[in-house]
This record gives sequence, structure tokens and C-alpha cells, in this order.
Amino acid sequence: MNKTLMELAERAGGTCRGDGSIRLTGAAGLAEAGPGDISFLANKKYANQLASSRAGAVIVSPDVETGARPALVHAQPSVAWAKVLELLDVERTRRPAGIHPTAVIAPTAKLGRNVTVGAHTVVEDGAVIGDNCILYPQVYVGFDVTMGSDCLVYPRVTIRERTTIGSRCIFQPGVVIGGDGFGFTLAQGRHYKIPQVGTVVIEDDVEIQANSTIDRGAVGVTRIGRGTKIDNLVQVAHGVEFGSDGLVAALTGIAGSTKIGHHVTLAAQVGVVGHIEIGDHVVAAARSGISHSLKPNQVVWGTPAQPIQDEIKLLAALRRVPKLLAEIKQLRKNPS
Amino acid sequence: MNKTLMELAERAGGTCRGDGSIRLTGAAGLAEAGPGDISFLANKKYANQLASSRAGAVIVSPDVETGARPALVHAQPSVAWAKVLELLDVERTRRPAGIHPTAVIAPTAKLGRNVTVGAHTVVEDGAVIGDNCILYPQVYVGFDVTMGSDCLVYPRVTIRERTTIGSRCIFQPGVVIGGDGFGFTLAQGRHYKIPQVGTVVIEDDVEIQANSTIDRGAVGVTRIGRGTKIDNLVQVAHGVEFGSDGLVAALTGIAGSTKIGHHVTLAAQVGVVGHIEIGDHVVAAARSGISHSLKPNQVVWGTPAQPIQDEIKLLAALRRVPKLLAEIKQLRKNPS
Amino acid sequence: MNKTLMELAERAGGTCRGDGSIRLTGAAGLAEAGPGDISFLANKKYANQLASSRAGAVIVSPDVETGARPALVHAQPSVAWAKVLELLDVERTRRPAGIHPTAVIAPTAKLGRNVTVGAHTVVEDGAVIGDNCILYPQVYVGFDVTMGSDCLVYPRVTIRERTTIGSRCIFQPGVVIGGDGFGFTLAQGRHYKIPQVGTVVIEDDVEIQANSTIDRGAVGVTRIGRGTKIDNLVQVAHGVEFGSDGLVAALTGIAGSTKIGHHVTLAAQVGVVGHIEIGDHVVAAARSGISHSLKPNQVVWGTPAQPIQDEIKLLAALRRVPKLLAEIKQLRKNPS
Repeated sequence: MNKTLMELAERAGGTCRGDGSIRLTGAAGLAEAGPGDISFLANKKYANQLASSRAGAVIVSPDVETGARPALVHAQPSVAWAKVLELLDVERTRRPAGIHPTAVIAPTAKLGRNVTVGAHTVVEDGAVIGDNCILYPQVYVGFDVTMGSDCLVYPRVTIRERTTIGSRCIFQPGVVIGGDGFGFTLAQGRHYKIPQVGTVVIEDDVEIQANSTIDRGAVGVTRIGRGTKIDNLVQVAHGVEFGSDGLVAALTGIAGSTKIGHHVTLAAQVGVVGHIEIGDHVVAAARSGISHSLKPNQVVWGTPAQPIQDEIKLLAALRRVPKLLAEIKQLRKNPS
Repeated sequence: MNKTLMELAERAGGTCRGDGSIRLTGAAGLAEAGPGDISFLANKKYANQLASSRAGAVIVSPDVETGARPALVHAQPSVAWAKVLELLDVERTRRPAGIHPTAVIAPTAKLGRNVTVGAHTVVEDGAVIGDNCILYPQVYVGFDVTMGSDCLVYPRVTIRERTTIGSRCIFQPGVVIGGDGFGFTLAQGRHYKIPQVGTVVIEDDVEIQANSTIDRGAVGVTRIGRGTKIDNLVQVAHGVEFGSDGLVAALTGIAGSTKIGHHVTLAAQVGVVGHIEIGDHVVAAARSGISHSLKPNQVVWGTPAQPIQDEIKLLAALRRVPKLLAEIKQLRKNPS
Repeated sequence: MNKTLMELAERAGGTCRGDGSIRLTGAAGLAEAGPGDISFLANKKYANQLASSRAGAVIVSPDVETGARPALVHAQPSVAWAKVLELLDVERTRRPAGIHPTAVIAPTAKLGRNVTVGAHTVVEDGAVIGDNCILYPQVYVGFDVTMGSDCLVYPRVTIRERTTIGSRCIFQPGVVIGGDGFGFTLAQGRHYKIPQVGTVVIEDDVEIQANSTIDRGAVGVTRIGRGTKIDNLVQVAHGVEFGSDGLVAALTGIAGSTKIGHHVTLAAQVGVVGHIEIGDHVVAAARSGISHSLKPNQVVWGTPAQPIQDEIKLLAALRRVPKLLAEIKQLRKNPS
């Protein structure tokens, strides 16, 4: 990257404050940035870090003072920051290209234009890969999988048979899509397997991160809605349906057949039981255990999860119990 | 699938109610099924969903009314359902077959009859694979692993050296069997590795699902008993011994050397400390933290886990604490 | 292994008690050991297991009575045990060797002396692998990764581009290093990806176990300090910095940008929020939820985590609440 602040402001759709001709060659956090770097202030409460930063320029919202330091001003600084980092990403991130001779592409698989298939990647019969997809080395694409265009599939992602994937999806290394759901029934004291003959639908613009697992439907569909982003080591069971624009942080598990609305956020290590419904715009704080359906537009916490204000009150009250018990004991000894 | 209801009833070991000559070509949930589909009623409490279903036929237990709709009647509807889905599974699920030319099979490895070894799969020296096993592409079978017959090993499963596997086991993608246990000892302020020279024994009819990990014994054996089923992202530490017919749901972790009886169920996100014993037929509800040995035949919940009735009472009582504290405060202000 | 007790004592830096000429060919736990095996007593509280053991010899600390049984006496029995098991490890563990013809090593990748690259392993352009490293089959080493000497990389480990790895590191199967961090920002109601252009630095003597994930920094570095050991299925988010000699047990998750001191222990299923600091020598008991910075040298437990004595008191007090409520109810009925 070697851009003037003015060029970056134009790219990001923001405006320039101070010397727009300053050249920037990198980006870094406020504490790490040097004179050639652009940095950004994510949150006004950290504004005091601005003064000590050596950053050549800084991305801020319009209401933040920047003194003599050149600034890229944007109503949403983190969006501007993302657009600057895209330049660095293109510059820094080398990717495989072309069809590697060791890739195994079955005769009836169909590849769009400009598709990359990395070394030792396997694409089974009946699979269809859209234009501009990049399959890194060692990926497995099962029978009759269909994938839209412009997907980025990192090494060791496994997509089992008949999965449907939209466009512009990103799968980080080790993701498993379409593994069998956990379906068994007792027969004569043993667990008899219920074949998992359903599928998975991943809509457009979904990202699933490292080593997360999305099970196929038992007989129907497991669906990840458009634009939903799933962090590392997340478990999505058979028949779960996610609306659009969800966020699911690491080590969360969602049990079978649960329906989740749009713009739902599940923070890290959350558990959601099966066969319930989570309304739109629900936010569950970290480590919540959700055991019943939730109406839309609320923030919940705790196990079982309840409105977060109630949980905060409950936790505060519980912490007073040891003192209360001591007082009661004292009172019994010396009744007034 | 294109079977009459009568044919399906015979296959499932059930009986026919109504028109046994109706032809069925698919299977689906009650809400999704059409006239060509067979569906099933898992639980009598959902019987009101029957009326509105468009399913051509339905699998029910003998005591469920089905009116004019043809039905497959079976004492265990979910077993009958599984047997019908097996037909769909055979029809829908394409699998690799034969020895792929890119597979790397060491000279001293031994393959039984009718074994499939997929593209880019590696089988190391001394490994023995039983008849009819299907190793999907990109599987790793380490030195001196032995595997019984009729196993199904999905892509990217890794089985490290000297593991012993029974027959009819299923490993979903990304499973790791035989990784080193977490064994270190402090020596001069640093963590010194204790070599993990033990093994893993997986008995017959075990299924382990996506990205779960079973560590090898430190010096002895980690054992998964016959017929035990393990969900996604489960951690089983070194020296754990599972009895037969266990069920372990997602994101559960079991620490080292714990002995678990037969027919034990651990629901999702459970944690079990090391060096304890869990009796036969114990059920631990979701998110339990089991910190001490448990006698057989009980259902537990909570952290630390206790009999579930006690935990339910405890949770109910705790939720009344904020009100209690408010009352006490009031009482102090205005002693009667 | 076929060594006299005297030879083992010399190797381990301990002394012999009783007949040092006894030959030992294996090692096992006290309950499993036979006359040809050496065993060890990890903890004096299990000393009563010594009498019934059939072990030919036993490793103990100087203050443990061993009667007529030959013993290897060492101030740190578990260190002596590790040194004995190293002999068994060399004997039992077969490893791949050499450059396999199916490995794909890019033209500008550089390999040190005596490097093993297993079947179907991919080493991308610009990668540098130090002397004596063993890359098992099916490993992925991304562009411009650098790795020191004497590393052991098991099958299906994925190391994404520009990661820096020290010497003597061990990565168990399925580990993912350098996946994108979970960074998005809302733009017009959708989650807009913040490119993750940072890197990961893994220092010397780190071990990361099966299917754990270490995300790359958003713009800076994610760092795992020298000698830190990470168990299976652990999530380390972007920008986390670990000091030296940490221990992290299974299913733990650490959120973004948190700084962790040296000699910190996080037991299993712990959660740590982002942007906090954990002091040196902190120990968090299993399933703790750490929601705020922690000063050095303390043991914490619970959610939110607090000093463990306080948490134990709290749990004990809470378990008395149901009885307290019953008493209060009684009191209201019959005020004395």
C-alpha cells in the first residue's frame, strides 16, 4: 500500500481533515502504528490513546478532535478502516491460482470460469463450482454439491454430498458442512442410527470459521441465512434454521430443529436447546444457556437465560447471600 | 424410493392401517411432507399436527388415531422411520468406491476384501483394514492401526498410530483419534512433556461425529465402549474409559482417567472432571459440571451436578432471592 | 525397552533402591503393570495402591516406603516417569521420514536439513522449514510461513500464510493456525468483513493439541508465548497474547485482544472475555467465566470469576437457600 490520505478517504467514502497529501504505507493499532501507518479510533472512550500514538493519520468519527494529526473522517470509522485494510489484504495475502495437477476433479463435476482448485483438493461427481471460486489445497467437495460464485474455501474444509452453497461465502480451515446429525433411537437397548438423509443450505455471504461444524438435516434442511457469520468451533445441529445476518461467537452450540430469526447474536459459549424459536434481533450474552423460546428484540443472559437486567440483579443478589446467612445466624444467637 | 405402504410396513416389521397399496417415493417431516411422502409422529403430544399434514401416509404407534390417512403402525415409530430412511439413504447417498490411484497405501498395509480407499487417503505401514470398509478421500490411517469390517470413515478423519477400531464404526469428517493426551509436568519452572505412549480402543458400532477428538492413553488405553455415539466437537481425554451404549452430545469434555459406565448419557456442553467414576444409566442434563463420582441410575444437573430435582428446586429458590432481599430491607426499615 | 533399573535411574537422574539389576521392558499404571514393567506413584495419597501392584519396580519420591520392591527414587517422580516413557516413545512410535513423492513443495519454499514432508502435504511459496522438522502427511503450510527446527506437525494441521513458528513446537492433528479473526462491522444492517491482515507468532516449545484454533491478528499479532501448552478444541481469538509457560485445557475460549501473563493456567471450558489482562501465575478453575482483568498470583473460579475461596463460600451459601426460604415461610405462618 502506498496511498495518500486523500486517496484513502475517497476509497472509504469519507473526508479528509488536515494534510491529505501524506503518504501511508501500512495500518496498525494506535499503540503500534508508526509515522507511515494509518490507525483508527474504534471507540470514543479510547480517545486519550490518540495523543500518544505515533500514527501518521487516524480514522475517526466527525465528533472526535484530532488536533494537528491528519485524519480520515467517516460517520462509521470501522467501515472506513475495513476499506483501508482491504488494500493491505490484497497486497499481503498470496493465494493459490489455477487448477493444480494433483487436484482430483471428477468427470461430471462442473467448474465455472476462473476457478482455482488447489493441490490435493477433491471435487466429486455432480459437483458444480461457480465462477471465481478459490478452493485452497486439500479441500473436499462431495457429490452433487453446488456452490455459487466468488467463494473462498480454505484448506481442509469438508463439504459433504448435496450441500447447497450461495455466492461470496467464506469457509475458514477445517470447517465441516453436512456431517450427519446426532440422530439415534433405542431399539432393544441399543442406539439405532436414524439415517440423516437431509441437506444443508448455506445462503449468500455467509462466513464460517475454523473447525466449526454444520450438520445436515435428518430429513429436511439445515439452513444458514444470508450474511450470517459463525466463529470458530461452533456446533449447528441438524435441522437448525438461521435467519439472515446472524452472529455466532466461538464454542456455541445450537441443538436440533431450533429456528433462529434474523439479526440474532449469540456470544461465545452459548448453548441453545432444540425445538425452540429465537426471535429477530435477540442478543444472548456470553455463556448463556437458552432453554425456551425467546420473543424478538431482547438481550438475555444466564442459565436459563432471562432478560439481562434481571440476570444482573439476580447475580448481585446472590452475591449477598453469604452475608445474609451470617446475619441470620447472628440474629438467631442474639435475637434482639 | 418407490414402495407401497405395505412393502414399507413389511420392511419395518410393522403393520398397515388403511390402503396398503399407496405408493410412496419420499419421506419428510409432517409439515413438509406431500402426498407422495411418508412421515412420522415422533411423539403423541404433536398429534394435532397430523390433521394438517399433507403426507400420503404416516408412521404411528398403535394407540394413535389416523382417521382416513393410511398408516404404518409400529410399537416404536422411530425405529420404523429409521428403516424407511435407510432406503432413501441408499438411494441418495453416493459414495466413493475402489482404490483411487492417488491413494498412498504403504507396502505392509493390509486391506480386506471390497475396501474403498479414496483419493489422497494415506494408509501407513502395518495398518490393517477389514472387509468392506470405506475410507473417503483425504483420510489418514497411521502406522499399525487395525480396523474391523464395514467401517465408514469420512474425509479428513485422522487416526494416529496403533489405534484399534472395531467393526461397523462410523467417523464423521474431521475426527481425530489418538492425538497425544494433555500430559506435562513442571521441571525447573517449565512444562516438561510426558510422552503419551498408550493407545485408543474403539469398540464395535461406535459413531464419532465431526471434529471430535479422542486422545490416546498416557501409558494405558482410552476406550470407547461398544455402541457408544459421540456428537460433534466433543473432547475425550487420555485414559477415559466409556462403557457400552453411551450418548455424548456436542461440546462436552471429559477429563483424564474418568471411568464411565454403560448406557450413560451426557447432554451438550457437559464437563466431567478427571479420575472419577460415573455409574451405569446416569443421565447428565445439558451444561452440567460433574465434579465427583456418581452412583448409577440417576439424572443429574447443574454445577456441581446434583440430582436434577434438587437442582430444579435450587434454581427456583435462587430466583426468589432478589425479592427476599428486598423484603428484608423493607422489614429493617419498618420492623413490625 | 530392555533396561536395568539402574540404567533407568541413571537416565532419569535418580537413584536406585533395592535390586538395580532387575530388567524392565515396559511401563504401566500401578493397577495394570506386570513384573516386567516399571510403574510410578504420582501422588502419595495413592500409596496404598503400591502394595497390590504387580509392577517389577516403581518410581517414587524419597519419602515413600517401597518395602521389598525395587524403586527408582527421584525428587520429582513424574519427571523421572517422563524420561522413562521417552524410551518407550522412541521404540513404539513409527514416524514418516523423507520427502514423499506426492508432497507438493513450491519452488521458492526452503527446507532445512533432514526435513520430512509426508504424503500429500503442501508447502506453499516462500515457506521456510527448519532442520529436522517432521511434517506428517496432509499438512498445509501456507505462503511465507517460517518454522524453526525440530517441530513435529501431525496430519491435517493447517498453518495459514505468514505465520511465524519457533523451534521444537508440536501440533497435534487438525490444528488450525492463522484463520481469520471474527471481525465484522455493521454497514447498512449487514455484517461487513474487516480484513484480518495480521499474523500469528508461535514461540519455541509450544504444543497445541487436536482441532484447536489460533486466529491471526486483525492488524497486529496473535502470540503464544514460549513453552505454552494448549489442549484440544481450544479457541484463541485475534490479537490474544499469551505469555510463556501457560497451560490451557480443553474447550476453553479466549476472546480478542486479551493479554495473558506467564505461567497462567486456564482449566477446561473456561471463557475469557476480550480486551482484559490476566496477571502472571493466575489459575482459573474449570468452567470459570472471566469477565474482568485479574491481578497476578491468584486462583479464581466461577462466573464471573472471583477468588476461589469466595466462590466456594458462595456456592455453599447458595445451596442453603432452599432451606432458608422454607424456614422463612414457616416463620411467617407461625411467628414466635
